[in-house]
Amino acid sequence: MLATPLLTQCRNPSFVLRKVKDVVIEDRPKPVLKDPDDVIVHVKQTGICGSDVHYWQRGRIGDYVLAGPMVLGHESSGKVVEVGVAVSHLKAGDRVAMEPGVPCRCCNQCRSGAYHLCGGMSFAATPPWDGTLAKYYVNTADFCYKVPDHMSMEEAAMVKPAAAIAKTADLRAHQTVLVFGCGPIGVLCQTVAKAHGAKTIIAVDVLEVAKSYGVDHVFMPEKPEPGADPIAHAEKMAQKLKEECGLGEGADVELECSGAEPCVQMGVFAARHGGTIVQARMGKEVINFPITAVCTRGLVVKGSIRYLTGCYPAAIDLIGKGIIDVKRLVTNRFKFEEAEQAFELVKAGRQDVFKVMIAGVV
Amino acid sequence: MLATPLLTQCRNPSFVLRKVKDVVIEDRPKPVLKDPDDVIVHVKQTGICGSDVHYWQRGRIGDYVLAGPMVLGHESSGKVVEVGVAVSHLKAGDRVAMEPGVPCRCCNQCRSGAYHLCGGMSFAATPPWDGTLAKYYVNTADFCYKVPDHMSMEEAAMVKPAAAIAKTADLRAHQTVLVFGCGPIGVLCQTVAKAHGAKTIIAVDVLEVAKSYGVDHVFMPEKPEPGADPIAHAEKMAQKLKEECGLGEGADVELECSGAEPCVQMGVFAARHGGTIVQARMGKEVINFPITAVCTRGLVVKGSIRYLTGCYPAAIDLIGKGIIDVKRLVTNRFKFEEAEQAFELVKAGRQDVFKVMIAGVV
Amino acid sequence: MLATPLLTQCRNPSFVLRKVKDVVIEDRPKPVLKDPDDVIVHVKQTGICGSDVHYWQRGRIGDYVLAGPMVLGHESSGKVVEVGVAVSHLKAGDRVAMEPGVPCRCCNQCRSGAYHLCGGMSFAATPPWDGTLAKYYVNTADFCYKVPDHMSMEEAAMVKPAAAIAKTADLRAHQTVLVFGCGPIGVLCQTVAKAHGAKTIIAVDVLEVAKSYGVDHVFMPEKPEPGADPIAHAEKMAQKLKEECGLGEGADVELECSGAEPCVQMGVFAARHGGTIVQARMGKEVINFPITAVCTRGLVVKGSIRYLTGCYPAAIDLIGKGIIDVKRLVTNRFKFEEAEQAFELVKAGRQDVFKVMIAGVV
Amino acid sequence: MLATPLLTQCRNPSFVLRKVKDVVIEDRPKPVLKDPDDVIVHVKQTGICGSDVHYWQRGRIGDYVLAGPMVLGHESSGKVVEVGVAVSHLKAGDRVAMEPGVPCRCCNQCRSGAYHLCGGMSFAATPPWDGTLAKYYVNTADFCYKVPDHMSMEEAAMVKPAAAIAKTADLRAHQTVLVFGCGPIGVLCQTVAKAHGAKTIIAVDVLEVAKSYGVDHVFMPEKPEPGADPIAHAEKMAQKLKEECGLGEGADVELECSGAEPCVQMGVFAARHGGTIVQARMGKEVINFPITAVCTRGLVVKGSIRYLTGCYPAAIDLIGKGIIDVKRLVTNRFKFEEAEQAFELVKAGRQDVFKVMIAGVV
Repeated sequence: MLATPLLTQCRNPSFVLRKVKDVVIEDRPKPVLKDPDDVIVHVKQTGICGSDVHYWQRGRIGDYVLAGPMVLGHESSGKVVEVGVAVSHLKAGDRVAMEPGVPCRCCNQCRSGAYHLCGGMSFAATPPWDGTLAKYYVNTADFCYKVPDHMSMEEAAMVKPAAAIAKTADLRAHQTVLVFGCGPIGVLCQTVAKAHGAKTIIAVDVLEVAKSYGVDHVFMPEKPEPGADPIAHAEKMAQKLKEECGLGEGADVELECSGAEPCVQMGVFAARHGGTIVQARMGKEVINFPITAVCTRGLVVKGSIRYLTGCYPAAIDLIGKGIIDVKRLVTNRFKFEEAEQAFELVKAGRQDVFKVMIAGVV
Repeated sequence: MLATPLLTQCRNPSFVLRKVKDVVIEDRPKPVLKDPDDVIVHVKQTGICGSDVHYWQRGRIGDYVLAGPMVLGHESSGKVVEVGVAVSHLKAGDRVAMEPGVPCRCCNQCRSGAYHLCGGMSFAATPPWDGTLAKYYVNTADFCYKVPDHMSMEEAAMVKPAAAIAKTADLRAHQTVLVFGCGPIGVLCQTVAKAHGAKTIIAVDVLEVAKSYGVDHVFMPEKPEPGADPIAHAEKMAQKLKEECGLGEGADVELECSGAEPCVQMGVFAARHGGTIVQARMGKEVINFPITAVCTRGLVVKGSIRYLTGCYPAAIDLIGKGIIDVKRLVTNRFKFEEAEQAFELVKAGRQDVFKVMIAGVV
Repeated sequence: MLATPLLTQCRNPSFVLRKVKDVVIEDRPKPVLKDPDDVIVHVKQTGICGSDVHYWQRGRIGDYVLAGPMVLGHESSGKVVEVGVAVSHLKAGDRVAMEPGVPCRCCNQCRSGAYHLCGGMSFAATPPWDGTLAKYYVNTADFCYKVPDHMSMEEAAMVKPAAAIAKTADLRAHQTVLVFGCGPIGVLCQTVAKAHGAKTIIAVDVLEVAKSYGVDHVFMPEKPEPGADPIAHAEKMAQKLKEECGLGEGADVELECSGAEPCVQMGVFAARHGGTIVQARMGKEVINFPITAVCTRGLVVKGSIRYLTGCYPAAIDLIGKGIIDVKRLVTNRFKFEEAEQAFELVKAGRQDVFKVMIAGVV
Repeated sequence: MLATPLLTQCRNPSFVLRKVKDVVIEDRPKPVLKDPDDVIVHVKQTGICGSDVHYWQRGRIGDYVLAGPMVLGHESSGKVVEVGVAVSHLKAGDRVAMEPGVPCRCCNQCRSGAYHLCGGMSFAATPPWDGTLAKYYVNTADFCYKVPDHMSMEEAAMVKPAAAIAKTADLRAHQTVLVFGCGPIGVLCQTVAKAHGAKTIIAVDVLEVAKSYGVDHVFMPEKPEPGADPIAHAEKMAQKLKEECGLGEGADVELECSGAEPCVQMGVFAARHGGTIVQARMGKEVINFPITAVCTRGLVVKGSIRYLTGCYPAAIDLIGKGIIDVKRLVTNRFKFEEAEQAFELVKAGRQDVFKVMIAGVV
C-alpha cells in the first residue's frame, strides 16, 4: 500500500477498493498481453460513474458483490502502448476511447446483436473484474476505439456516458422527445435526440440547467399537495405539460433519466398512445406503477442497461464533429493521487457537480 | 320498455343498460343505412365480455362514463340483411363476424397502421355508442368479415376474443412463450402461440385446465409465506419455474393474461434478458412493479388494449381451419330474453364458466 | 376553350390535357363540396413533375391511360376558401400544402399503415382524376396540411417532392448514405439524409451541382471504355468510389435517384454487405441486373413509388425550420396562362432547369 | 495419395480437390486442438452441396478461387471425440450437427447480429479453408450443436440446408407464401413456411414433386410462345397464377429457390404491392430484371446467402420434432471411398436425385 504514493516510481499505480468504504492507491504489476487480440493502454482520463461510487459505499449492485480488492473506474481513455500480434487496427501511440465491457461473443445474446445483454461479460470495475483507474489497463483491441487527433482525452473518456443512450430508444427523425432529468445522462440524451433529428425536445426537471442545452421547452412539475394521490398528481402534471409545451396527444418517445418515481409515473401519462418509454436510469428497486394506463394507452416500456451494442463508433463520431459537446459537462478535475477526494465529491451529490474527471498517472 | 317482451312482434328488441345495475329489454326502431358503406346485420350470437359486465355494475371504464341508456354487447356474429350502395364485398344473406370498433381513418394512428389506438374510434357498447345485443345492428361494411360456411355463428362470435391476441406480441416461430392465466384469453393465447410456431409454451395458473390445451408445461406457483416480501417471492417462483420447465435463461415472450399483481411481478423475473412481456389483461390500476429489474434485464413491456389492427382475418382463418378451437370455450348458452341471467352468471365469476353466449332474436 | 383566356372572368380556369400533346386552358365550373370532409382550395402555386410531362407526351404511365380530358398538375399549395361541415382543423383563409392522393382508407394496405400502396387511391392528374392546375381544387381535408405563416406558397408546393423521400429508406442516424443523381429528387435526398443524422453523405453524378448542397463527397464515375462489360465497369467504379470517398466496406444506405441503368448496377457493388438500396426513380422498365451480387452481398433492394405514408407533416416541419431549403431548387417561374411554355421547358430537359413553378390564377 | 485407400489404416483420410476436376482421397494428419474452444469431431455423414460441385468443376465461386489442394464438403454431422479445456457444453461422445462457417466475432456485422455477412468468416470447403469430408474435423465448439438422441446422423447432416432458409424471409404467421423451385431447398422452404404458420403455400415448378410436401397449390407455368417478350410472359404467368390459386392481389412473401431467370421475373409480378421477395438461390450472374415494376409495386427484394445468423438451433428443433422431414430428401447414399461417384451423380443433375449423402470413415 502507498500512503504517500511516489507514483512515478510505481509499476502500475491503481486505485483499489479494498472493502466497503475503504479505497487506497496501491502499486500493482504492470499488466502483460495475455491474448494475441489484447492491447495495453496507458490510461489518461477516467470519469467517475454512479456505479463506482455505489460499489465504494455499499460493496454491491444487484447480484454483483465485492468479494476481494478491486480496482475502480470504467469510463476511460488512454494511449496504446503495446499491441498483441493479432491486432491490426491499432498500434502503439494511438489514442483510444475504451468500451469497458467485453462480451463472451458466443452466447445467443452476443450472436444476435445484443452483446450488452451477454451474461458472460467481463465489465471493468464490476466484481470480480478490475477497473481502469490504474496507470495501465489491458483491453481487447476491438473494444478500444481510435479517436480523432483533435479530440481530447477528456472528451474520449466521456464517450461511455454518451454512448449509454445513443441508440437507447431507436430514435427516429421528426419525433417529439421528452427527457426526464437533466443530470449528465439527461442532457446528453437531449443532445443525442437532436442529433437524431428529433422534431421537438422537452426536458422535465426541477432545475433551469436544461434550457442551456437547447431543448425546445423545459417543464418544471409542481410538488403535489400534501396527501394528494401520487398517480392522480402524475396524470395532472402530464396534462399540464402537454398543454404548456404544445405536445398535443403526448410524446412519441420518452427518455427517463431521473430514476425518480414521480417522473416514471408522470411519463406514463405524458406519452402518446402507442409511444415508447425508455427507463434509462435506476432509482428505487420497486415503485408504484400505473400498469393499467400502460395497457389502455398501448405503451412500450423498455428497460435500459449500461449502453447498447455498437454505439461507441457513433458516439465518437458525434463528439468528434462537435455535435455532442461533452466538454462542458466536466465540472471538476482531479489528479490521480486525489482520486478519493474526487469520489467524495461525487458522493456529496451537489447540483453544480456534473461529471468529475480523474487524470491518469503520467 | 318490455317487461315480458313479445320479441317476435318487436321491431328491434335491444338489451339496454339504462343506468348502473339496471338492464332491460326494450323495443327500438329498426336501424337504417346512414352511409353508402354501411350494412345492417341480423345479430345471431353475442359473447359476454368482462367490459360489458363492468359497465353494468359500475357504469364506467376509465374515461368512458355511462351518460344515458346504452345497448350492451360487442362480440357478435350475424347475417347481413341489407347493404349500402357502395358495398361490394358483402350481400344480403352473408354470414359475418363483426369487429366492434370503427376508427376515424384520418388520424395519425389510423394512417400509420395502428387504428386500434385511434382516439376517435366508435366502439360498440362503449359510451355513448350502442352495442350489438339487439336484433339488428348497423356496422361499417369493411368491419364485417364473411366467415366460411362451415363456421358456426357461435364460433364467429368468438373471433373477437381470439383476435384480441393474435398479433399481440409480434410472435415469431421458435420462441419460448410463457402464458400467465388460463382464462378464455389465456388459453386462446396458448393456441395462438402454437399456431405461430412457438417452440415451447408454458402456462402459469393455479388450475389444471391449461394442460388440456396442449401446452408443453404447466406451472403452479406457490402462495408466499405469511409476511414474505412479494417481490422476493416473485423472483423465487420465477427461478423455480425456469428450473422445473427447463426454461434456461427465461422466456422469450410472456403473455400476461391474468391481470394479477403477483403474476405481473413474477413475469419480470421469468423473462430472459431482452425478452418481451405483453400485459394483455387489466387488473389493479396501480401495482408494485420491480422497475429496476426491468432495466437490468433489458426487458420490453408492452401494454395491450382490446385487439390489434388487422387481426380479424387471421383469427377467422385460424378458427375456420380448426387450428384454434373456440367451441370448447363456450360453456354456457342463453336465449336473448335470458340476457340478464347470462350477465348474472358472468358476474358470479365461477371457475367452470368460460365464455357465455347469448343467442340473437329470430 | 379559351384561346386568349380572360382568366379573371372565368369561373375556374383549368389547364387541361385533351389528348396526347394537346393542352389548353379551359373554363370549368367552380367545384362544390361533395362530402362533409371536403375543402375547396384556391390554388396558389404548382410545381411541374415528370409524370405530368409524361402524360402530356405519351398519354399513359403503366396501367394508367388517358381516356378523356384531364386537368394536369399535382404538386400544389393554396388557400382554403370553403370547408365542409365535418372539417375542424381547417378554416377559410388557411394556407395549405396538398397531398395529391387520397386513399380508400379501407383496404389492407390502408389499414396496415401503407396507404401509399392503396390500389384504390384517387391521385390528382392520374387518369381519370383531374389534377390541381386550376383556380379551385376540391380535396379531402385531412390531406391538406396547414403550413406556417412564414412559409411561402412556393415552398408549400415543394412539399410533395421533398416528402417523396423523407421516409424512403428508414434512414437512421450515423449511417453512410450514397445518393445517385443530383436532380431535384437527388439533392432533396441529400438534405433529408442530413436532417436524419446521416454520418456521411456521398453524391454520385456527372455534375458539380451536388457539392453545393453540403454533401461530404462527390464522386463522378468515368465512362466505360468502348466495348467494356457494363457490369465489370460498374464494379470497378464502385471500388473506386469506396476508395476515394473513404467508404470502407460500402454504404449503409443508397438512394438511387438517377434512374440510370449504370448507376443501378454500380449501386449493387457500392453498398456494404447487408446494406439497403432504395430505387427512388424510374428509368428503363427492364435492366441488366447483377442479381447474384445482390445475393452474395445480402442486400435489400426496395422499390419506391411516389411518397410514403405519413411523410407530409415531417417534410413541412423540415422546410418550415429551414432545414430543407427548397427555395433554391425553383429555377423557373411562370404565370398560369404560360403553363404550356412551362411544360415545354421541363420537356426540354436542360441541366440548369431544376424545378419549374406555375403560379395560380388570382 | 491413396489410389486404393486402406481407410482404416489411415490417420485422417480426406477427400481432396487438388485442382479443377481432380479429386482424390488422401491421408492427412489427424487434426489437433489449436484453441481451448475447439473440439475434434469424427465425421459421420456429409451431404453434397452445389457449391462443392462448383469448386470441383470450376475451381472458383465469385472471389473465392482455389489456390491449392482443399478438402471438400461442409454439410456434416459427427461425434465429438475430443474437447478443448474451455469447452463446457460438449463432451466426447456427443453427437453434433456442424455449422460450417466460423465468423470473426469482432467486425460490425458480427457485433450487430449478422455474422453470416462477416467478411472474415472461415468457411469449410471455401478456399483456403479445408472442408469436412475427412475422418476428423476440428471446429469451434459453439458452432457444433448437440442433436437429440433420436435424430440420425443423416438428419443431423441435413440441418445446414434446412437452416439455410429458416429465417430467410422473416416469415410471420398468416402470410401467403410462394415458393419458386421444388429442389431440396425449395421443398424445405415449403415445410419451414408451414412451421412458421403460413396461411397458404403455393409452389411453382415444372414438376409434380411439390404436391407431396403438402403445399396448398402447385402452379406450373407455361413455356412462352416462340419470340414472346419474356417480361410480358412473366407478367401473364403471374396473373394466371394469382387467378388459379386464389392469390388475390399477390403473395405476401416469395422464396425464389429456382435461380431461373423466368421465375425471378415472374416473381416480381406475382407479389402483392409491398410484398417481400427473397432470392434464395443463385443462377445466372446477371439477368433482365423489371426494375420499374419493383418500384411501382413497392417491393422489397432481399438477397440471401448461405444461411442466416442463429438459425441452427431452430432447424434442429424442427427436424427433431419431425416438423421438417429431411429423411425423405436423401435419395442416394455412398460410402466414403465412393465420394467421387457421389459427386458425379450430383453433377449429372438428374431430377430424381435430391440429396446425396456420403458416410464417414468408421
